[in-house]
Amino acid sequence: MSRSTPPPAAVDDPPCPQSSSPAEALAIAYRGVRQASAALCDRLEPEDFVVQSMPEASPVKWHLAHTTWFFEEFVLAPHEPVFRPFHPQFAFLFNSYYNAVGARISRDRRGMLTRPTARQVLSYREQVDSRVEELLRAADPEAIRRIAPILTLGLNHEQQHQELLLTDLKHAFWHNPLRPAFADRLSDPPSEAPPLRWISYPEGIRWIGHAEGGFSYDNEGPRHRQFVPAFRIASRPVTNGEFLEFIADGGYSRPNHWLSDGWAAVQQLGWEAPLYWERVDGSWCTFTLAGMLPVNPAEPVCHLSYYEADAFARWAGARLPTEAEWETAADVAIAGNFADSGRFHPAPAPSLAPNDEPAQLFGDVWEWTASAYLPYPGFRPSAGAVGEYNGKFMCNQHVLRGGSCATPASHMRPTYRNFFHPDARWQFSGLRLCRDA
Amino acid sequence: MSRSTPPPAAVDDPPCPQSSSPAEALAIAYRGVRQASAALCDRLEPEDFVVQSMPEASPVKWHLAHTTWFFEEFVLAPHEPVFRPFHPQFAFLFNSYYNAVGARISRDRRGMLTRPTARQVLSYREQVDSRVEELLRAADPEAIRRIAPILTLGLNHEQQHQELLLTDLKHAFWHNPLRPAFADRLSDPPSEAPPLRWISYPEGIRWIGHAEGGFSYDNEGPRHRQFVPAFRIASRPVTNGEFLEFIADGGYSRPNHWLSDGWAAVQQLGWEAPLYWERVDGSWCTFTLAGMLPVNPAEPVCHLSYYEADAFARWAGARLPTEAEWETAADVAIAGNFADSGRFHPAPAPSLAPNDEPAQLFGDVWEWTASAYLPYPGFRPSAGAVGEYNGKFMCNQHVLRGGSCATPASHMRPTYRNFFHPDARWQFSGLRLCRDA
Amino acid sequence: MSRSTPPPAAVDDPPCPQSSSPAEALAIAYRGVRQASAALCDRLEPEDFVVQSMPEASPVKWHLAHTTWFFEEFVLAPHEPVFRPFHPQFAFLFNSYYNAVGARISRDRRGMLTRPTARQVLSYREQVDSRVEELLRAADPEAIRRIAPILTLGLNHEQQHQELLLTDLKHAFWHNPLRPAFADRLSDPPSEAPPLRWISYPEGIRWIGHAEGGFSYDNEGPRHRQFVPAFRIASRPVTNGEFLEFIADGGYSRPNHWLSDGWAAVQQLGWEAPLYWERVDGSWCTFTLAGMLPVNPAEPVCHLSYYEADAFARWAGARLPTEAEWETAADVAIAGNFADSGRFHPAPAPSLAPNDEPAQLFGDVWEWTASAYLPYPGFRPSAGAVGEYNGKFMCNQHVLRGGSCATPASHMRPTYRNFFHPDARWQFSGLRLCRDA
Amino acid sequence: MSRSTPPPAAVDDPPCPQSSSPAEALAIAYRGVRQASAALCDRLEPEDFVVQSMPEASPVKWHLAHTTWFFEEFVLAPHEPVFRPFHPQFAFLFNSYYNAVGARISRDRRGMLTRPTARQVLSYREQVDSRVEELLRAADPEAIRRIAPILTLGLNHEQQHQELLLTDLKHAFWHNPLRPAFADRLSDPPSEAPPLRWISYPEGIRWIGHAEGGFSYDNEGPRHRQFVPAFRIASRPVTNGEFLEFIADGGYSRPNHWLSDGWAAVQQLGWEAPLYWERVDGSWCTFTLAGMLPVNPAEPVCHLSYYEADAFARWAGARLPTEAEWETAADVAIAGNFADSGRFHPAPAPSLAPNDEPAQLFGDVWEWTASAYLPYPGFRPSAGAVGEYNGKFMCNQHVLRGGSCATPASHMRPTYRNFFHPDARWQFSGLRLCRDA
Repeated sequence: MSRSTPPPAAVDDPPCPQSSSPAEALAIAYRGVRQASAALCDRLEPEDFVVQSMPEASPVKWHLAHTTWFFEEFVLAPHEPVFRPFHPQFAFLFNSYYNAVGARISRDRRGMLTRPTARQVLSYREQVDSRVEELLRAADPEAIRRIAPILTLGLNHEQQHQELLLTDLKHAFWHNPLRPAFADRLSDPPSEAPPLRWISYPEGIRWIGHAEGGFSYDNEGPRHRQFVPAFRIASRPVTNGEFLEFIADGGYSRPNHWLSDGWAAVQQLGWEAPLYWERVDGSWCTFTLAGMLPVNPAEPVCHLSYYEADAFARWAGARLPTEAEWETAADVAIAGNFADSGRFHPAPAPSLAPNDEPAQLFGDVWEWTASAYLPYPGFRPSAGAVGEYNGKFMCNQHVLRGGSCATPASHMRPTYRNFFHPDARWQFSGLRLCRDA
Repeated sequence: MSRSTPPPAAVDDPPCPQSSSPAEALAIAYRGVRQASAALCDRLEPEDFVVQSMPEASPVKWHLAHTTWFFEEFVLAPHEPVFRPFHPQFAFLFNSYYNAVGARISRDRRGMLTRPTARQVLSYREQVDSRVEELLRAADPEAIRRIAPILTLGLNHEQQHQELLLTDLKHAFWHNPLRPAFADRLSDPPSEAPPLRWISYPEGIRWIGHAEGGFSYDNEGPRHRQFVPAFRIASRPVTNGEFLEFIADGGYSRPNHWLSDGWAAVQQLGWEAPLYWERVDGSWCTFTLAGMLPVNPAEPVCHLSYYEADAFARWAGARLPTEAEWETAADVAIAGNFADSGRFHPAPAPSLAPNDEPAQLFGDVWEWTASAYLPYPGFRPSAGAVGEYNGKFMCNQHVLRGGSCATPASHMRPTYRNFFHPDARWQFSGLRLCRDA
Repeated sequence: MSRSTPPPAAVDDPPCPQSSSPAEALAIAYRGVRQASAALCDRLEPEDFVVQSMPEASPVKWHLAHTTWFFEEFVLAPHEPVFRPFHPQFAFLFNSYYNAVGARISRDRRGMLTRPTARQVLSYREQVDSRVEELLRAADPEAIRRIAPILTLGLNHEQQHQELLLTDLKHAFWHNPLRPAFADRLSDPPSEAPPLRWISYPEGIRWIGHAEGGFSYDNEGPRHRQFVPAFRIASRPVTNGEFLEFIADGGYSRPNHWLSDGWAAVQQLGWEAPLYWERVDGSWCTFTLAGMLPVNPAEPVCHLSYYEADAFARWAGARLPTEAEWETAADVAIAGNFADSGRFHPAPAPSLAPNDEPAQLFGDVWEWTASAYLPYPGFRPSAGAVGEYNGKFMCNQHVLRGGSCATPASHMRPTYRNFFHPDARWQFSGLRLCRDA
Repeated sequence: MSRSTPPPAAVDDPPCPQSSSPAEALAIAYRGVRQASAALCDRLEPEDFVVQSMPEASPVKWHLAHTTWFFEEFVLAPHEPVFRPFHPQFAFLFNSYYNAVGARISRDRRGMLTRPTARQVLSYREQVDSRVEELLRAADPEAIRRIAPILTLGLNHEQQHQELLLTDLKHAFWHNPLRPAFADRLSDPPSEAPPLRWISYPEGIRWIGHAEGGFSYDNEGPRHRQFVPAFRIASRPVTNGEFLEFIADGGYSRPNHWLSDGWAAVQQLGWEAPLYWERVDGSWCTFTLAGMLPVNPAEPVCHLSYYEADAFARWAGARLPTEAEWETAADVAIAGNFADSGRFHPAPAPSLAPNDEPAQLFGDVWEWTASAYLPYPGFRPSAGAVGEYNGKFMCNQHVLRGGSCATPASHMRPTYRNFFHPDARWQFSGLRLCRDA
């Protein structure tokens, strides 16, 4: 999400309910998420932790420290018998926007910090991890009940930052003419996606939003009714191959299909293709976390702004789905190409499932919806500092659904609402077409 | 609306259906609207026609010429037996965004044009008016049937520009330390508004949008069903008196109640009160089209951005209504303080009507809604140049409802959707509170 | 000069010494200069008085009022028996930078003022003129002695603004796609300039700056010695024909000959030719005060920044002269194509005079020198408000010499130092080549 | 110098003439300068090498690599028997402005590069050093004669970058709220400077600029005559104590003494004291390379822009010296507080020498002069790529003289001309007062 920290959760239970005791389950979940963050940095050099390539992105170091500060501030500080901060200024350096907790360094200056070093940040993580694990070991069931919600929120928060760490690092590496690679080279041969099919849904009053049980962010509720007219949704996301036709048809050079603000962005920012695409010797390549690769026509198109997604949909004689339409269609099993695969890049569309369900709803690419990011009816902000900014971003953004190849699989739900400004392109963001029935 | 030209209309009949023949009715309507524009300029000096005080505003001269160009381009050009443009470059100078009709001068450079002079623009109006009236006189009923929709659209378009002419001129005059007055001085004594009451509506599926019959813009349709939860809406808009309490309570100095983007605007733009408010010798005054006046606590608060309206509502423990809620409540007679009164400033709230209807829904101030400006389900752009940009502004804006003291009365409908960016403050924009039931 | 108001003068005598009494001479000079300003506006429409096309330029109205305010503030206020300002806010509106005299409207907002109207400004001029002339009539010789220096300064100040009025109006008209013309069309056939000759001067200690006697600005003194090495200077300014060769040779597309800051300007501002040049159907035209005209190869090249002048000189294997070199060469009669000719455009170079003097040193185009605008040794600011900013602009500017086709002839002297920022192009600025001997 | 690379040299002999053979002398000089750069980085963490805190500054890594690239490009490439670049893209990454040598990465994006790592850059240095030393070992006297000038230039170039490395690192560290320290803490007690005395020089024709013999940059010549009026110069630079009086007298809050552009900078940038000064608990402290320290009144004031230096001088009833005046006074032994002391901060003024010479002309702080940075009479750019930009910066800058506490002692000469834009404050820049005699 664009502010890099989640709204607070209405937490019911920890993410690993199968373990023997709640405390152990929490500890296992904690260790798993925390180690996943560290594992992402295994191949990085100290210099890679420092750079901030644009105000919206943050340095790797900052992601690692900010998520740690969250546990220090909201878990250790209120629950440790004797609390002492790791460093008196870390709250200033690594708070993101919790105004109730104090001032903070300007967002666009995060890349100015040479110190603390990456090594010091890793030490910070280790110390906080020991203390959190010690806290969980020593806590009685009543304490665990109080700690579990905020700790679970912290873990979901950290999972979000794992995705941002990847997208921000990709953006930073892209600025380096040496084009460093984060992951091993992908080796798919170019291929073709299965033909697009339209899947129909009748009109009706739909229940939308997260129901009781399991973790969710508060912006996913309250569960409520919406009248949804009949619609048809595409069996898979739009592919690179289809997007190449849009480009070839002058998609970026005529205003016809663009929103007014979108066309202004095209002209001011000189967009001629998705972010990271470059023509090399006459054919399109794209910068990936595994370096420069040819654009594969079978893969979902990615790194689009809302404006580009919307323009493509109009050009294709279709439109973007609303949140309610997408969620109606998303009544399927959660599976797909998530960060866990280590691919860190969208995968070609599979053949359509025999059961006629839409494919690739989860993972691969976030799908822009036609819905502005607004509160659900009856939405109420939570109390306290973590809830301070609950609805604060509900303006000027659009909702994306379904997660991407950089999202941890355990982080995703059908009701999950991600949101970005309509000109944002550095996330793994694509689209799926929709039509009136 | 922020782009100063309307989406095209689904026009069924001219605005003056009571006259003897359709052609005569059209001619009467045409003359009425065109003369109303000219009448607004009666007291202006030639120099007043030139200035553009910000990119979003336009010079008076431009409004007068652009609305005339609309009739020349879309009525005369296709229907005159032998068409010759008044001036070969006026299409370039006075087109606003119809890309299909050719290039146009950059929006923010409209104030650079000394020529054509105001007098030349008035001659341009006179010539086009004669030709349009001649066209109507000579047209057979079949021709009238073809001309009526676009001419009616042109008249509604011109009415919108009458409002913009006033708000843009107010903004320009405000930049002049001499503080020129456009209208005569208002002389209300300060007073107090009647107490606010809450009016309740049950949940249900509501029909929203414009039905068959009468003129409307295409963004008001198609008429469609929405599920609307139960809600309560305020009996009148928020007043200056209430807004003064918000200011006194530190409304502009603490981030608590603000959207994140709103708080950024407060800090970057130094907002401390509504636009046009200034402290004079310790008490608040406001710049009006009749010069500087004391802030009257009984009047609806005005010249608020969406951010301020939203922050006030949160501070007051309420929220803004959605479009559907507002339209549900707006099932009342259309009456109020419109431009026709010549006051050009909001009037104090009247006592609550005995029938328990909300007051001041129409006229006085546009009311910000919680709804982003998005297409209704099933929305389809019209064909041709006037329809080129139908949905082009459906992003990054919020809907306002009800018209203002600068809107012509005959221009207003319950389904009318005005829209502006959330930081816009130079329109007569206020708010009405709403709550969950 | 770039701040539109002169440094104060060391005034010895009025500009019209031949008249019968000092008071009468002053009155004649006053009337002459004031009427010359008004005469420049004879053909303007009220709308032409309002526009400000860039922050460095001012509206015609402002020039007329500001120069009038100077006489009101510095002549009438201290010397009228009973002084009452024409309007209490005009000092605020029409002061330029005299901080000692009060606040002033932001320079880049001067074009926002619709009022006072052009007619009101002309009334302002008339009233002040009557009062000044009455003052002169009634003053005794002692009073005249006190008034003469500041009044003479005011007249020179107004002459500067006559030039700026023309250059600013040219810039504003140029922004209008209708390309209005201020003066009648010039009708020179294209011609060729006489060949350039080099005129030599030996090394020596030179006296530089203004000596006793006659009016001068304080930045022209004190007269002082400089050691000037031997040099050769061109017999005439660089012509359009020569500059076309520079363009054809890739002058604007290779960094070789440019100062670093100059090359940055070329790239950021997209310079490809002098200001006002445009390619029309494959050949170069230029916007003049008489409308668009073909570029005449025989005329001095004009509307160059310092960067372009410097780059051309290097490309030509030469350099710009220093102030001292220029002044050494300028020991000739002051004659040339000044504003008085009504041409308002540079004229083709004449044949070289038999006496081997450099031609066109005065009038036609200001000539950029290699000298930064800095104080002469021993320079001292004058006392009082008019002297408040004596040396305030002596940084980041370069000196130009000789006057232009928009300068009143009586305003020019060999020691006159004009100055502009090195990227300024809207003055009639050209260059003359120089070389070491 | 502000473009971080020197104009090419007119080199006569290597800096260590006392050694046994020219080749050995060169090798010793080479090793000494190169090791001095590396030594500056001894205490840095890898993260410290990456950050660029403003466009004018460069990362430590860039300084180390750019100076190395200079030797690779201009020494190894033309003189190695078989040359292969260390890395094919390093010329692109680490070239600064030599357009003749190829494209280069945008100056303000140098901080975006995580790779090459600091370690890789140090390897680059080591390889180039081995190759250069091998080249010197193998070269015959004729080859040494050809190599010596460009190698000596490279060493002077590297010394400049040693100073910039320090000033840029200071600026970067200052942005970190943790305020890291580069050097050990200074422990001077506050003290008072000796009283200022004026030292007089008679008028006369002076020889200015570098004479034959020894290394100099080409902008220091040709040696030439100037007529210099009589003047008096201060016995020492202006101190912090004196500058505190200027601040206390409202120096930063009234426009009186400021150049117009300077006052604009004060207001736009919010200057209230020299760069790095902060009020801590009511008294002034300053950020130094040894961390935050109290402002010592006896030390030369430092980190001033030209505007502040000029304003202070006017406030003090004096002025800045011209280059010629400073150079006339600088006919003294070169000694002072240079980078070699390891203090990296100006030292308190010593008592006045009995011989009545001005003190602290060299080292401690660069002294702004009143002279714009312009070519000396007869100046000619050198040929080839290193000479490509000889005079390219001779516009919009002012000259500073004498070196600072961050300049290597062996780098300084009385004729040395440093130059920066008048708003630059991050160098160790102060001033010395001057007066007409």
